Amino acid sequence: MSIISKVLTGFQELLPADQMMFDQMKHIIQDVYHQYGYVSIETPVIERSDVLLAKGSEEADKQIYFVQNGLTAKEPNALALRFDLTIPFARYVVDHMNDLSFPFKRSQLDRVYRGERPQKGRFREFYQCDVDVIGKGSLSVQYDAEMPCIIYQIFKKLDIGKFTIRINNRKVLNGFFESIGLSAFSAEVLRIIDKAEKISHEKLLEAFAELGVDDAQVASILNFVGIRGTVSDIIGGLYDLNIDNEQFNAGIDELKIVCDLLALSGVDAAYYTIDLAIARGLDYYTGTVYETTLDDYPIGSVCGGGRYENLAENFTKEKLPGVGISIGLSRLFWQLKDQGLLKPMTHNVKSFVILPDKPEHMALSLHAATKIRDAGGVCDVIMEDWNMKKKLQYATRKDAFYTVVVRDDYDTNDVVISLQYKQGDDFVKDIVTMDALINMAHTH
Amino acid sequence: MSIISKVLTGFQELLPADQMMFDQMKHIIQDVYHQYGYVSIETPVIERSDVLLAKGSEEADKQIYFVQNGLTAKEPNALALRFDLTIPFARYVVDHMNDLSFPFKRSQLDRVYRGERPQKGRFREFYQCDVDVIGKGSLSVQYDAEMPCIIYQIFKKLDIGKFTIRINNRKVLNGFFESIGLSAFSAEVLRIIDKAEKISHEKLLEAFAELGVDDAQVASILNFVGIRGTVSDIIGGLYDLNIDNEQFNAGIDELKIVCDLLALSGVDAAYYTIDLAIARGLDYYTGTVYETTLDDYPIGSVCGGGRYENLAENFTKEKLPGVGISIGLSRLFWQLKDQGLLKPMTHNVKSFVILPDKPEHMALSLHAATKIRDAGGVCDVIMEDWNMKKKLQYATRKDAFYTVVVRDDYDTNDVVISLQYKQGDDFVKDIVTMDALINMAHTH
Repeated sequence: MSIISKVLTGFQELLPADQMMFDQMKHIIQDVYHQYGYVSIETPVIERSDVLLAKGSEEADKQIYFVQNGLTAKEPNALALRFDLTIPFARYVVDHMNDLSFPFKRSQLDRVYRGERPQKGRFREFYQCDVDVIGKGSLSVQYDAEMPCIIYQIFKKLDIGKFTIRINNRKVLNGFFESIGLSAFSAEVLRIIDKAEKISHEKLLEAFAELGVDDAQVASILNFVGIRGTVSDIIGGLYDLNIDNEQFNAGIDELKIVCDLLALSGVDAAYYTIDLAIARGLDYYTGTVYETTLDDYPIGSVCGGGRYENLAENFTKEKLPGVGISIGLSRLFWQLKDQGLLKPMTHNVKSFVILPDKPEHMALSLHAATKIRDAGGVCDVIMEDWNMKKKLQYATRKDAFYTVVVRDDYDTNDVVISLQYKQGDDFVKDIVTMDALINMAHTH
Repeated sequence: MSIISKVLTGFQELLPADQMMFDQMKHIIQDVYHQYGYVSIETPVIERSDVLLAKGSEEADKQIYFVQNGLTAKEPNALALRFDLTIPFARYVVDHMNDLSFPFKRSQLDRVYRGERPQKGRFREFYQCDVDVIGKGSLSVQYDAEMPCIIYQIFKKLDIGKFTIRINNRKVLNGFFESIGLSAFSAEVLRIIDKAEKISHEKLLEAFAELGVDDAQVASILNFVGIRGTVSDIIGGLYDLNIDNEQFNAGIDELKIVCDLLALSGVDAAYYTIDLAIARGLDYYTGTVYETTLDDYPIGSVCGGGRYENLAENFTKEKLPGVGISIGLSRLFWQLKDQGLLKPMTHNVKSFVILPDKPEHMALSLHAATKIRDAGGVCDVIMEDWNMKKKLQYATRKDAFYTVVVRDDYDTNDVVISLQYKQGDDFVKDIVTMDALINMAHTH
């Protein structure tokens, strides 16, 4: 009794109504991933630490949760909780290589763990919703067009306002920097461009100056990232720069393939754009990159991803290029809630049946509940020994759409039952047949 | 490249086809739980160790996985991975008490962690699918009848053969032992009875003798657990023992209420029985207990549970009685697979669209894919630059129901498209309209 029973700091735990909205968002994402032919996989939450830390990121090293079995721990740091889904996926693909057909299209919606300093909207346990397609040796750039189609479908269905899918290509960026003699600094320059929208013009020039970028180069960079307009304007503008660099031109060709396929796929042009300032922080993206922002709410990128050359270079000699995206669902959910954008949903229990005291009414009540469920409906039978008022209050508090109360004058032959149902905020009393009841359960 | 990329010993990791079957079983369970009005909750995988170990079970202590954040661990054993869903649920209910309405009906299908010795069918990470209803202060015994209804619906839908839900009541058992002067040993006697089916008659007598149970008592016990027949035979038989013990008679009354409601709820009498030898190992069950076995396969109990007096006595003074069941899904799945009882399922990707090389055919192909998905179907577009034979092989390997190939002679006005579809093991070529195609995607 003396133990303080609180959820841990930095962990998101939801009440049932919020959990339902969260689950609904997760299902929308999962369904779209499935509809595009991506199969679900699940990997253990625990992996060997050397697998997780193969890339040797210092940041990951600090945040990782090590795991040990109380009494038998000989190697205290041998096991750890995954901090993303990408490394376990790479391990999975290599582990099961011979049993998979490539291109292998997989989705995984699951929790990852990072021992970060808790702060608003940052969690130590959070959901990532990843989808990737992996080729063996090679993978057509046409798959790069499927990701924006998926993002479009998901965010339309999530119904959280107008959004913009921002597309860019690292080859365009890298080729451009090469052409102005800045390839050695390209990573740093990309990092500055990545922050361009968040910092002032002065800070931007300062950051470039610190790198030793001269005025002519800065002018070229700002001219380049200033190319705006429709997708074809930008692609035209890039070709018009007439830069003699193989990588640069290959990148424009890829952008064109992706945008042409997007248009053919019926994605509304108002929902995507080429944004030459998008670079993505991660080092391993090599071609197309994506970010998605909500037009009306400044909550940053809600879905990012891109093309990479090699999924699993630490685990296999096999070259495994891929393209994928990730939605940080826990963070997105928290942000939507914080901004008041979550639409209140009714409880999933739509119908209630009050179990009567009189045995002769019980069978009919339970029969009604069974029928409602058989028709695919949701039905909660209130079995407590309460008075009628309290039973109806319970149903109301749980957002009952209607509540079945078998009356004294019911007719066993016609199976006529009495019920109360919601009309606005009030409850209306009515007498209906069993068929009418089932119909109500099925349609609401 | 030198890192061995294997899933950890004792962890279940499935290939996509198996994962799909696993997920389908999970969805069936979840859907039935929801249909009975149980809302989903999720709790963090990590909890404070003192919360998890409040009950102080030595076995749990040995198996627990402790968790620490690499560089900031001041209390190495302060956090741990949950080893069941019950303790986190108790913590959740107490933590959010004021925001919940009681009876609170919740379901949770999630992974738990036990550092057990790996052995066949035992995993270190496994799914439990729990459903519980919790009262505040009290909870009607009528809810005890809902659990067998739920089990019946789930195992009918899982379609893994005939099963039997075995019901008993701890009050009947405890009261009986009290009446023959064995209440001090009741826990031990129950443990022997629990194993009665697994050990020989000699071993059984030996075990009783070790406890100091005399011959008359053994005869009474065997006479008692030997009461067989229909549910009403057994209830009649128990009343006929004419034992003057309050607890015993209260237990029979509860059994009768549960079985009467089960019959009224339309549960087929061939699927449940009273089994007086069922005791359940856990100490905290106080009334109704359940076990479910598959009639044709000796794989032990696939679903157990019961009534308990107090969910969270270590966290609150509030009395929280409840009743619940749990399905060990990872183990059940493994057993079904091991016995060859998993039905081969087709891949969830039912339709494939081959993206043609000719740009004038692309739009129609992508349009077909979009239409199939809009109609709720699943469609994988093959975008690799392969020859037609290889593309068709890929679709076949992934169990394509049909594959859309836009032909040279397609007609843009009538949107007539060519497709191949499976008939038995063969593929048939056909030419259909877009509407017919969508219809096929929707119905298969």
